[in-house]
Amino acid sequence: MFTVIGERINTTLKKVKAAVEVRDDGYIREDVRKQTEAGATYIDVNGGARIGHEEEDMRWLLEVVQEATELPLCLDSPDPAVLEMAYGLVKKKPMINSISLEKDRFEPMINYLQGKECRIIALCMDDSGMPKTVDDIVSRAVSLVAELEKIGFARDDIFIDPLIQPMSVDVTNGQTAMEAIKRIMTELEGVHTTGGLSNISYGLPQRRIINRCFLAMMISHGFDSAIMDPLDRDIMAMTVTADMLAGNDQFCMNYIKAVRAEKIVA
Amino acid sequence: MFTVIGERINTTLKKVKAAVEVRDDGYIREDVRKQTEAGATYIDVNGGARIGHEEEDMRWLLEVVQEATELPLCLDSPDPAVLEMAYGLVKKKPMINSISLEKDRFEPMINYLQGKECRIIALCMDDSGMPKTVDDIVSRAVSLVAELEKIGFARDDIFIDPLIQPMSVDVTNGQTAMEAIKRIMTELEGVHTTGGLSNISYGLPQRRIINRCFLAMMISHGFDSAIMDPLDRDIMAMTVTADMLAGNDQFCMNYIKAVRAEKIVA
Repeated sequence: MFTVIGERINTTLKKVKAAVEVRDDGYIREDVRKQTEAGATYIDVNGGARIGHEEEDMRWLLEVVQEATELPLCLDSPDPAVLEMAYGLVKKKPMINSISLEKDRFEPMINYLQGKECRIIALCMDDSGMPKTVDDIVSRAVSLVAELEKIGFARDDIFIDPLIQPMSVDVTNGQTAMEAIKRIMTELEGVHTTGGLSNISYGLPQRRIINRCFLAMMISHGFDSAIMDPLDRDIMAMTVTADMLAGNDQFCMNYIKAVRAEKIVA
Repeated sequence: MFTVIGERINTTLKKVKAAVEVRDDGYIREDVRKQTEAGATYIDVNGGARIGHEEEDMRWLLEVVQEATELPLCLDSPDPAVLEMAYGLVKKKPMINSISLEKDRFEPMINYLQGKECRIIALCMDDSGMPKTVDDIVSRAVSLVAELEKIGFARDDIFIDPLIQPMSVDVTNGQTAMEAIKRIMTELEGVHTTGGLSNISYGLPQRRIINRCFLAMMISHGFDSAIMDPLDRDIMAMTVTADMLAGNDQFCMNYIKAVRAEKIVA
C-alpha cells in the first residue's frame, strides 16, 4: 500500500512557524489529527525554521504531535544532533528525512544512522548537483542503497527520492522521473521510492491538477510513497485510485473503503 | 498529440437514437459542434442501433455531422456494405472502427479495406475471445499490424485497441493493459494505441474518477488515443495534462492554451 508522508508540520510554513513560536499546541494537535484521519502513514516533523531554536522547537513539537496521533513520525532535519535527540523521544520506529551523497551531509548522516532502528529517505543528490539523466538518478540510487546496506539497512527501510524537476525547465523531466522510478524499483528490488511532487509543476498554471495527474502516472511506474499534503482531498483520492489501478489493492478494498468514507467524490 | 475520438454520436445511446428516429438534425449538429469545440480529433459515427435501418440512418447522420464540423469522421460499423457507402460520403480521410482477428469479421473487413485511404482501429480480439495476458495482447497486435501492412497500411494509420478489462474481475487488469501498451508502442514502433477506457471501472463506484486516473496512467506508458466523451471536462483536462507530463507537448504550449481557454480548472 502507498506510504503517505504528511508534510504539514513544517516550520517553513508560516502558520506552523507562528504556532510553534507561541507554543500553540492546539493548532498543531488539530492539524496532526486531521492528517491522521485523512490517511497519512507518517507525520513529517520539521522544526528547523527558527534559527537557533531547532532543538527546543523539535522537542516541543515531538511531544505535541505524539499526543495527537499514534502514527510513526518522519524526523526532518539536516542536523544529526537534533535527530539524535528526536530519536530518543519517538515512540515508534521513525523515518529520517534525509541523507544524500553530498559530502558534508553524507558523512555525518551515515555515522548518525549506524545502529539506528529507522527508515530513511535517501536523496539522489551529490556534490555535482541535481541529477540530469535517468542514468544519473539510478547510479546515485545504487550508491545510496549500497552504502546503507553496508551499515545494516534493509531495502524495505530505504526510500529513494529521485528529485523531481520542473516541466517548465525541460519537458522531458516528467519522463525522466518515471523511467528512473521504473528502473529503481526493478534494479533495486525491495526498496521504496518517494519524494515531493510539486516541483514538477513549478512555473505552470493550475499546479494542483498537474501534481495529482503526475502522481497517478508515477504510481503506474512503481512509485510507492510521496511527501504530500494529506488534507488535499483531490490528490489523496487520486493516490488511492491510482494505487488500486496499479494492482496494489487486493479486491479493490482500500478503494471501496475510501469511497464509502466519502474520500473519493467526483 | 493525443487523438481524441469523440464517442457521442452513437445510436446505442438513447437520446441519439431518438434524434435519429425523428431526424432531429438540430440535436446532432449541436452535439457535434460541442465535441469539436471541446477538442475532439475525430467524430465517431455509429448508426447501427435501429435494426434494418443502419444504411439510411448512417447516410443521414454523415450528412448532418459533416455540416456541423470540419473534423474527419470515424466510421463505426461492422458491416462492410455500410462502410463502403459511408466511405463514399466522407469529405476527409476517415478512421474505420474496426477490424479484429475474429474469422467472420476479419475476412470481410480486410477485403473492404484493400485500397482504401483510411485509418483503422484494430481490436486485439480473436475467436478464442478476449486476450488474457500481456503476451496475448501483443501477439494479436503483431498479427493485426502484419496483416494490415500486407495490404499497404502505414503504421501511422493503425490504432491498436488492447481491449481494456475490468479491475473488478481481476486487479491485475490495469497493469496488464499498461504493460501491453508499453510493449506495443516499443515493439511495433510507429503504430498508435486506442480504446474505450470505461470498462476498467465496471462494477466499481465513482467510475469517472477511475476512468480519468487510468487514462493518465495509460498515457504515461505511451497510449496516444482514446475513444471517449470530449464533453467530459475532467477527463479532457486530464488528457491534456497527462500528455504534457509524458513529454508530448513542446514548451507545454497545448497545456497552457487549454488553461487559458478555461478548459483546465481545479
